[in-house]
Amino acid sequence: MNPAHIADQYLAIWNERDAATRRAMIARTFSLDACYVDPMMRGAGHDGIDAMIAGAQSHFPGHRFTLDGTPDGHNDLVRFSWTLAAADGQRVASGMDVATVAADGRLASVNGFLNAA
Amino acid sequence: MNPAHIADQYLAIWNERDAATRRAMIARTFSLDACYVDPMMRGAGHDGIDAMIAGAQSHFPGHRFTLDGTPDGHNDLVRFSWTLAAADGQRVASGMDVATVAADGRLASVNGFLNAA
Repeated sequence: MNPAHIADQYLAIWNERDAATRRAMIARTFSLDACYVDPMMRGAGHDGIDAMIAGAQSHFPGHRFTLDGTPDGHNDLVRFSWTLAAADGQRVASGMDVATVAADGRLASVNGFLNAA
Repeated sequence: MNPAHIADQYLAIWNERDAATRRAMIARTFSLDACYVDPMMRGAGHDGIDAMIAGAQSHFPGHRFTLDGTPDGHNDLVRFSWTLAAADGQRVASGMDVATVAADGRLASVNGFLNAA
């Protein structure tokens, strides 16, 4: 269980614009029945999570997620913070996610929170 | 779902030194099969959570938890931050918890994280 590696893999999925590559990354990273929820959206299963991320990308063209601080974790939990910024560097959102890691190392669930503006 | 109320009730349990009062608060606040886990300890069920909190209190006599910032939440999730301080005000730890709220309003799970010193 390597929180930094998990957070990097996870944010790379949100930044991956190639549909086939992103779908393969999701299959490697999430359990079959994984669920994601934050204040703005939710998705379940590989198809549901992929559709959710594709939708978010279409709302934020050219934007990228970057890691803030150092991910940490304990037991089957990982915590990390992130910022979403436009191509010109303007930050549009930041938040913190808590992921639960399944026995096979893939993510069983991700609960996302947005930081106050 | 009132994140501030939930966080207040929750931290009051950790601060309650009267065993019978604390046990009654736990029964009101946690689901029967609730589970708690952080980097230092874990507990499950009303008895397990009560024993865990009693143990923590015995390690930190006279200390109190106070809320930091403003709790937030969405869907069935609540997030809040806290500080543990000695009676003289000296801070000994701080952290952030994410709780899942069951359909009846009680806490089904709490995942705790400690902030870096």
